[in-house]
Amino acid sequence: MSETLLSSRNLAFELYEVLDAEALTQRERFAEHSRETFDAAIDTARSIAENLFAPHNRKNDEHEPEYVDGAAVLIPEVKPAVDAFLEAGFLNATREFDAGGMQLPNLLSQACFAHFQSANAATTSYPFLTMGAANLIENFGSDEQKQRFLQPMIDGRFFGTMALTEPHAGSSLSDIRTRAEPAGDGTYRLKGNKIFISGGDHPLSENIVHMVLAKLPDAPAGVKGISLFIVPKFLVNDDGSLGKRNDVVLAGLFHKMGWRGTTSTALNFGDNADCVGYLVGKPHHGLAYMFQMMNEARIGVGMGAVMLGYAGYLYSLDYARQRPQGRLPDGKDPTSSQVAIIEHADVRRMLLTQKAYVEGAFDLGLYAARLFDDTLTLASEEERRTALELLDLLTPIVKSWPSEFCLKANELAIQILGGHGYTRDYPVEQYYRDNRLNPIHEGTHGIQSLDLLGRKVSMNGGAALKQLLKLIHGTCQRAEAHDSLTSLRQPLEQLLARLQAVTLALLGDLMSGKVNQGLANSALYLKVFGHTVIGWRWLEQAIRAEEGLAKGNPADRDFYQGKLQAARYFLTWEVPSCHHDLAILEARDDTCLGMQEAWF
Amino acid sequence: MSETLLSSRNLAFELYEVLDAEALTQRERFAEHSRETFDAAIDTARSIAENLFAPHNRKNDEHEPEYVDGAAVLIPEVKPAVDAFLEAGFLNATREFDAGGMQLPNLLSQACFAHFQSANAATTSYPFLTMGAANLIENFGSDEQKQRFLQPMIDGRFFGTMALTEPHAGSSLSDIRTRAEPAGDGTYRLKGNKIFISGGDHPLSENIVHMVLAKLPDAPAGVKGISLFIVPKFLVNDDGSLGKRNDVVLAGLFHKMGWRGTTSTALNFGDNADCVGYLVGKPHHGLAYMFQMMNEARIGVGMGAVMLGYAGYLYSLDYARQRPQGRLPDGKDPTSSQVAIIEHADVRRMLLTQKAYVEGAFDLGLYAARLFDDTLTLASEEERRTALELLDLLTPIVKSWPSEFCLKANELAIQILGGHGYTRDYPVEQYYRDNRLNPIHEGTHGIQSLDLLGRKVSMNGGAALKQLLKLIHGTCQRAEAHDSLTSLRQPLEQLLARLQAVTLALLGDLMSGKVNQGLANSALYLKVFGHTVIGWRWLEQAIRAEEGLAKGNPADRDFYQGKLQAARYFLTWEVPSCHHDLAILEARDDTCLGMQEAWF
Repeated sequence: MSETLLSSRNLAFELYEVLDAEALTQRERFAEHSRETFDAAIDTARSIAENLFAPHNRKNDEHEPEYVDGAAVLIPEVKPAVDAFLEAGFLNATREFDAGGMQLPNLLSQACFAHFQSANAATTSYPFLTMGAANLIENFGSDEQKQRFLQPMIDGRFFGTMALTEPHAGSSLSDIRTRAEPAGDGTYRLKGNKIFISGGDHPLSENIVHMVLAKLPDAPAGVKGISLFIVPKFLVNDDGSLGKRNDVVLAGLFHKMGWRGTTSTALNFGDNADCVGYLVGKPHHGLAYMFQMMNEARIGVGMGAVMLGYAGYLYSLDYARQRPQGRLPDGKDPTSSQVAIIEHADVRRMLLTQKAYVEGAFDLGLYAARLFDDTLTLASEEERRTALELLDLLTPIVKSWPSEFCLKANELAIQILGGHGYTRDYPVEQYYRDNRLNPIHEGTHGIQSLDLLGRKVSMNGGAALKQLLKLIHGTCQRAEAHDSLTSLRQPLEQLLARLQAVTLALLGDLMSGKVNQGLANSALYLKVFGHTVIGWRWLEQAIRAEEGLAKGNPADRDFYQGKLQAARYFLTWEVPSCHHDLAILEARDDTCLGMQEAWF
Repeated sequence: MSETLLSSRNLAFELYEVLDAEALTQRERFAEHSRETFDAAIDTARSIAENLFAPHNRKNDEHEPEYVDGAAVLIPEVKPAVDAFLEAGFLNATREFDAGGMQLPNLLSQACFAHFQSANAATTSYPFLTMGAANLIENFGSDEQKQRFLQPMIDGRFFGTMALTEPHAGSSLSDIRTRAEPAGDGTYRLKGNKIFISGGDHPLSENIVHMVLAKLPDAPAGVKGISLFIVPKFLVNDDGSLGKRNDVVLAGLFHKMGWRGTTSTALNFGDNADCVGYLVGKPHHGLAYMFQMMNEARIGVGMGAVMLGYAGYLYSLDYARQRPQGRLPDGKDPTSSQVAIIEHADVRRMLLTQKAYVEGAFDLGLYAARLFDDTLTLASEEERRTALELLDLLTPIVKSWPSEFCLKANELAIQILGGHGYTRDYPVEQYYRDNRLNPIHEGTHGIQSLDLLGRKVSMNGGAALKQLLKLIHGTCQRAEAHDSLTSLRQPLEQLLARLQAVTLALLGDLMSGKVNQGLANSALYLKVFGHTVIGWRWLEQAIRAEEGLAKGNPADRDFYQGKLQAARYFLTWEVPSCHHDLAILEARDDTCLGMQEAWF
């Protein structure tokens, strides 16, 4: 098997043919970069991912972290892998040169990171969580907090976590009960319990910086009463050396279906002694800060789902090419050789479906990453704000669509391998189990659907939605130049027109106070919106493939034909399936809403 | 939680309101039975399943069988559970009184067995496999083989397996390489390797009787050259005592994604010494014998998939009733109490979807079991043949539909439990992993789709299909008596008409030699056919619910309302989604068939 993590030809297609990464080098922030520096970063990522992350992916699964004497013990392969990641600079890929970073566009950072996500989701979590925690301090922390906590994270000495969930408060963060009392010296004393804290304990770093949501004594009820605190495992002295152990106690480990290599912890704060915390930013603004970091985190989670799907797709593709089994329906001569299973139409269907799902979602994830660059580096404030609005709108799709459909891809990969796919001797069943987390964490599927329909499509008078519609119409217009794409373009146009009408109707309901009814079938809305967006991205890829074919390079011909066929699959098999969902939304069908508890 | 395995109210509804089990007691074979004896058998099954099977279901998963000194070692809880199952007579539930059985209808045997499948899929496999092996010998073995091997199986002293798959021959059984040489004394010497043999070794019985497919030296190529052999782990002396160890060697255990409590073995035959086998029936008829037993085996597998879905549904339903989280969209006051998550529309959707899938498939499984009784006990041969044709037609659906949609139900159960559902502290993730086997074994999904479209719908001039259409039309006609069911009946009628037309068109293709094209999208055909059948069964249940409501018993009101709402969900949300699949079939779309290997 030549490539196991992702197709480098497809990555090059995305970066240089679809998303024009080189244009970013025209911007001041990226002026030092070129396609050569981009590719060098990618090559480094691939090499470390292949050599240090992928080899212990199964071992991570078989030997999950153990709770020994109050600490979490990992397999020894994790640390050298993470260390190599740090040494190569990927933790700070997007930071400025002056801050020790590579000053890469987010697009390139995501492209590099994708290799690690494909190779080993669990080990990759530790730096991923650290990046998220570091970004919070960087954006909202005081200079002193940056000096004391952020700099050691950038240096790779401290790792981070996000400590949000409590036993009785998962999706409903406004109900957290962890308290933070002012100690009188500007610090706080925390008391409470958190669960499902990934990376909450491990031996990979000198210290762990927990970003903890808690309530101050005078907090108003609800989401506007939540504050954000830095709670280090070890206090940090003024000279940067480690001080005494803070009272953050590892109460236990959760044992998960998959993603087993990442510790999932229960943490107790302040049960036995003082648990010292430091308020980040202003009181009661904790959730707002989290939300401002959410686009980035959710792109990361969405890309994680994509890459597990991608790994399964490549594995099952290779298997289908190698594995002989049976004969074609019209070739029943039992003395003839068995054919490779890729010859069977139904196996092709399962492979093409996977390709359409993972390459469609991969494109969207990178598109969102490039949009994130726009929010930071476009010339005018208005342009940056416009980009941010579009990114805000797309984020629920970027997170949820791959979590649903690249998980489905993993299920198909198992099916292609048959009985072998069901054993732990092959990697595909683990990919499924690892990926099953993604529709749950970082905002469940249900939460994403409420975010999209209840908030995002109507924000700022629907400005982002109008922007998206304009972009999709633009792609459809460009597709008109290619007669071969007519049958791909039309289903998208039909779906888009109907989605637009349904959106207006549902927003009308919401504005007239029929909130429960208007949001009742939001899961269907999320699916249709997602299919529209992915359909758009596939039409965009199809245009680029036609342009690529026109250049006439024989070496690229198969690649572009594959793109066109996958686009055709998605736009003619998947996109039209949404009309039935739209009919249910149009009818304000209340079958589910009207189901009574006593009737179950 | 009151009921964890299945709803006894729903079982009573199926047996006595939908499928009229009591009418079976009019038949001579079941004349000794009554509703009371039926219910007594069910109560016994429930009690043993709850008390001896369910408690070690998770332990089975956590402590999978180990390979120790050439043998498979199980956790100690398995044997007492299986022994209780045997002592209560469930292995021989359908056998005649004279043969030590309970002479129960297959319908009742399946209803009893369902409790074990829900409680513990892995432990239940051992008797299930034994029943299959015993049925083969009973139907095709010689009197001497029955005396020597079948009787000890009936007595619970010997267990059985089905040894079909080989490393290079899974779906394509015609390519098996295991050889059987005549020894000159009427016995044979086997040589070959089998994989994925469930129950291939264990300490639960004195002996294990492997039913092995192998080829004789003069075997013609292909499926018509396969013979069936009895290959016991220990030879059996003329007086019934155990003789010397046969050369069937446990070469290793497979480690699976789920269903871990059932040993999955690699077995080597005749590698080191003589491996003695006994030909069952005529040479080269092995596969035909297997096929004749297949309806029963596939009903069992389908019901296994249903019951894992059922267990997950009941667990997530109970959880959703207990677990407070968040507030309704129109009740955002953060000081108000959190609501139980069953109040959220999207959680109701996930529960109602599960209910529609598992109760729809449960009904179909029991319907098939009753049909199986008809094939054996209807008065005239023609009636029995007609019943068998219908059962043959429905079998691919009975096996595959629950394997796909009750697995989907398990995925929804995980989602309802959120982060908790993803941990091994709750049972729902195991249900998913256990159920993931079902679309693979006993004929993959792809094989079922080819069996349905390539063989079953056209057999005997489409006689079975015509019979099914007549039955569905009959149900639609009876539904006309209820105005409330108009909106449920019409979607089914519309789908049925279009499915009929597509079927004729596709059969036309197949008959005109366009075999590869006609079968290319058989997976879609299987889905649409399955949804039609389940839609029919839901309409049938809805009629019974309306009849039940009309009786006016207040205690039953909620139950029947739930049935009507689930029927409404399935017939208006799910059934119409098939029109898009039919459009693809109608167009003879070749997107997947036309995808070239080089394009991936």
